[in-house]
Amino acid sequence: MNVVDIAQAIEDMDNAENQVRVFRLLPKDSSAEVFSYLDSDTQSAIVEAITTSELKFLMEDMFLDDAVDFLEEVPANVVTRVLAHTSPETRNLINKFLKYPENSAGSIMTIEMMSFPESFTVEKAIAEIRKTALDKETIYTCYCTDSQRKLVGSVPLRRLIVSRDDQLISDIMYDDDQLIFVNTLDDQESVAAIARKYDLLSVPVVDNEQRLVGIITIDDIVDVIEEENTEDFEKMALLLPSDDEYLKTGVLKHTKNRIVWLLILMVSATFTGQIIEGFEDKLAAIAGLTACIPMLMDTGGNSGNQVSTLIIRGLALGTIKISDYFKILWKEIRVAFLCGLVLAVVNFGRMYLLRAITGSETTDSVFLVVCIAMMCAVMVAKMIGCTLPIVAKALKLDPALMAGPMITTIVDAISLILYFNIAKLILHV
Amino acid sequence: MNVVDIAQAIEDMDNAENQVRVFRLLPKDSSAEVFSYLDSDTQSAIVEAITTSELKFLMEDMFLDDAVDFLEEVPANVVTRVLAHTSPETRNLINKFLKYPENSAGSIMTIEMMSFPESFTVEKAIAEIRKTALDKETIYTCYCTDSQRKLVGSVPLRRLIVSRDDQLISDIMYDDDQLIFVNTLDDQESVAAIARKYDLLSVPVVDNEQRLVGIITIDDIVDVIEEENTEDFEKMALLLPSDDEYLKTGVLKHTKNRIVWLLILMVSATFTGQIIEGFEDKLAAIAGLTACIPMLMDTGGNSGNQVSTLIIRGLALGTIKISDYFKILWKEIRVAFLCGLVLAVVNFGRMYLLRAITGSETTDSVFLVVCIAMMCAVMVAKMIGCTLPIVAKALKLDPALMAGPMITTIVDAISLILYFNIAKLILHV
Repeated sequence: MNVVDIAQAIEDMDNAENQVRVFRLLPKDSSAEVFSYLDSDTQSAIVEAITTSELKFLMEDMFLDDAVDFLEEVPANVVTRVLAHTSPETRNLINKFLKYPENSAGSIMTIEMMSFPESFTVEKAIAEIRKTALDKETIYTCYCTDSQRKLVGSVPLRRLIVSRDDQLISDIMYDDDQLIFVNTLDDQESVAAIARKYDLLSVPVVDNEQRLVGIITIDDIVDVIEEENTEDFEKMALLLPSDDEYLKTGVLKHTKNRIVWLLILMVSATFTGQIIEGFEDKLAAIAGLTACIPMLMDTGGNSGNQVSTLIIRGLALGTIKISDYFKILWKEIRVAFLCGLVLAVVNFGRMYLLRAITGSETTDSVFLVVCIAMMCAVMVAKMIGCTLPIVAKALKLDPALMAGPMITTIVDAISLILYFNIAKLILHV
Repeated sequence: MNVVDIAQAIEDMDNAENQVRVFRLLPKDSSAEVFSYLDSDTQSAIVEAITTSELKFLMEDMFLDDAVDFLEEVPANVVTRVLAHTSPETRNLINKFLKYPENSAGSIMTIEMMSFPESFTVEKAIAEIRKTALDKETIYTCYCTDSQRKLVGSVPLRRLIVSRDDQLISDIMYDDDQLIFVNTLDDQESVAAIARKYDLLSVPVVDNEQRLVGIITIDDIVDVIEEENTEDFEKMALLLPSDDEYLKTGVLKHTKNRIVWLLILMVSATFTGQIIEGFEDKLAAIAGLTACIPMLMDTGGNSGNQVSTLIIRGLALGTIKISDYFKILWKEIRVAFLCGLVLAVVNFGRMYLLRAITGSETTDSVFLVVCIAMMCAVMVAKMIGCTLPIVAKALKLDPALMAGPMITTIVDAISLILYFNIAKLILHV
């Protein structure tokens, strides 16, 4: 069975004792790999149950990035037990890794990379690879260093094995402009963007002195991409972002993640309340005006949501830049005009039909007010929807915070003011 | 310079003639790769300007998946010119690939994979790889076939190069349960899920007779992941999904993508309108009731949006299954109770404070009505928000369609009915 499937099978057992028993039966050479695919609860249970020598073996056999991931998630007493039983070098390395800022390249890299001096020949490099391949996280891109351990080039294994044995690495490696790398402190999101842009299988990480300190492999980058997408989905839905899975998050944590923005936006609704209160007697006097408030608000909110999502996504994928703002605004004005027009015309028909059916007393002038207000609401919503995410980006804030619900609250207030003023103007109230 | 950067530099030129001129100056061995990174407008311009022999060389040198991608995007006259100047075999292959359904594994795979019979020795396999590596899209996972060209195993290059020269491939390859593959007709989303789950660098694709027909490499899978995420973002924001970049999409196309759902939801708002109209005289009689409608609606919509996003995302990433429904519902009821309680209490304080400041005539009973309605709206929103995406999934519809705006419309209607009935009950109107 595949190690991923073994880990899954262990996860699916409902008894922690059985999980530990099965884990202990695994062949030595795959136990560390299976362990790295388990979730943190199961990992803790296993670490607490196995012997010291088993634990030592496990820690030395795991890739450093997996060990760090594991230690970041488990309770402090487990961390203490683990660190007490690892070799001093591993312990120092782990401590160093745990200190990198969250979501930095340093925090997700691993040190088990294939690297050799640029002065090697192809033959020597291949011999080195054959000797050490099993301890490396990947060997498919090798990195070349100079005498000060500075990163000076990269060479794909494919290029190595089609080269002549006596060629020098420095003659076949990609260097200068062709060499892509990141710094330990770079954000994981930008690392993912670079890997995606250049179709890399691994990205080398250097420190401030340009020394090669680690690599980030594509499987971890794929996880980063999904994590960053989840974070954007959550932020856009007014949630505090969280790395935990839905089912493993407690009720109190869920409540905490949700209540903050709900409270902020509920209190902001004071404005819309005040606007309506100021117009309450006129709303009461004219039949049909109040009934259209939800439709106007929802249509405005939905229109704004559409464009803000497109802009946020474009900014995240790098297909939209801040400097495109005026191009975008001009496009949105035209799209909003067309959308608004269609909506207004259909709405006129809908209200007309509804009056014929229900025999309500709503007048044609009210229809006109609603349709003009609809048009204005869509125009305002589209313009705000494309402006706010770009302003956020320019202010170095996360554009994802400027999504639907945030924009809805602003658009609500503006559309109501417009609605009531148009009503005043046309109905002379 | 890196090929990706060269493609970018060509894209950034504003003159098509210069683009073609620079493209022609590229060294022969990188021109096909640079071409595959260009966008379809630039590709068309180049194909129309280069000579027949240049075109022939370009087509034979490009990987098949890149050629198919390119032909899917450009105008029909360009396709005709290209196909007229490719060799009959390539033409047949391209035509076959163009016939795979959109978003299927077949439509994104490539045929340039490294494969050999399972009867080879390691030495023979490595010699084969060194000979043909440059024509393969990847050599880092090799695939093993039997005498009927059926896929029977896979072997990572790393495993090959640490094995003894005289070992048989069939002895070192991953087979049976350890062999992961997909069918040509599988959806690209499930291919991405498999690659992500098993941390694969490439996924082999087989036909209905289990014959190896192609592979999908991780760089294309990363693109699929971003594409599928974009599609979910778009669907959740009421947009018809589109593969085109924002800035390259015309005003009419943008309008078309947006107007459909805006119209549907605007017409659905007829219900909320009718509910309000039925209560209009009572709203007019009691101060403060109308003013709270936007706040109630927005809070309900936001609450539903939060949970539907979490569920949609969990379903997409596979961390939530349909069978988890009752666990989720029970969690949501508790979260909703806590959120609703906090919101109701804060809202009571807010309204109290507001009355003290503005001196409005709203009574304590109205406060009570609004707070109870708020609590109910949040409960209803959370329950609907977790139910609809799971129902959609069970009906084999896309859960992403059950996102915020859709749920808002339903929650709006239910919360208004609850609001007015609570008002009737408490205020005896």
